[in-house]
Amino acid sequence: MTIEPHPRHCLSLALWFGLVAHVTGSVPTAEAADAATGRAKAKACQACHGIDGVAKQAHVPHIAGESEIYLIKQLKAFRDGERKDPQMSIMAKPLSDEDIANLAAWYSSIKITVTVPE
Amino acid sequence: MTIEPHPRHCLSLALWFGLVAHVTGSVPTAEAADAATGRAKAKACQACHGIDGVAKQAHVPHIAGESEIYLIKQLKAFRDGERKDPQMSIMAKPLSDEDIANLAAWYSSIKITVTVPE
Repeated sequence: MTIEPHPRHCLSLALWFGLVAHVTGSVPTAEAADAATGRAKAKACQACHGIDGVAKQAHVPHIAGESEIYLIKQLKAFRDGERKDPQMSIMAKPLSDEDIANLAAWYSSIKITVTVPE
Repeated sequence: MTIEPHPRHCLSLALWFGLVAHVTGSVPTAEAADAATGRAKAKACQACHGIDGVAKQAHVPHIAGESEIYLIKQLKAFRDGERKDPQMSIMAKPLSDEDIANLAAWYSSIKITVTVPE
């Protein structure tokens, strides 16, 4: 038995891909985020995380070089109440998706290198 | 009006400090954690976080050089269900306080340096 592509299936598939392309095209992507705007916005984060993403307090994480995917997920989790922290739940509350994308673009643009103990 | 220290209050205070000193002295501290044991234990974390704490997947955070305070808090939060993640909730579940202290000692012992974009 051979399986031949069914013309109607091909049409459905083409329409589906067209729809996906249209939808993804209309959603702001991480690539569209602006690191320079994020850097300016990061002044609000500076006291704890630094502009350079290096924590200034022991209970605060370094966030320099974390991926945009991770930073966006955590900021949205704090904003939306899925992750809770006395400071971050307050700080993230007023952030728009665009603010979050820009902050993530900034902090992810910082390069980190590590030195492992002997 | 002058306020003079009340002898009974001084005694209570002295007893209180003595109690606190005794309690804190009997609790294992982060200083007692063993980074070498943590490094060996970190083989379970390696696929995602690396032995060097540099994430191997985009949705995973770098944890190199994070403070012991932060690492211990997050691992306990995952283990105890206060913070949830499909992978980490499972990975942290079987960890003892000692395992967590050792893992935190290892990952916090890694030094990070950052390069901020111009």
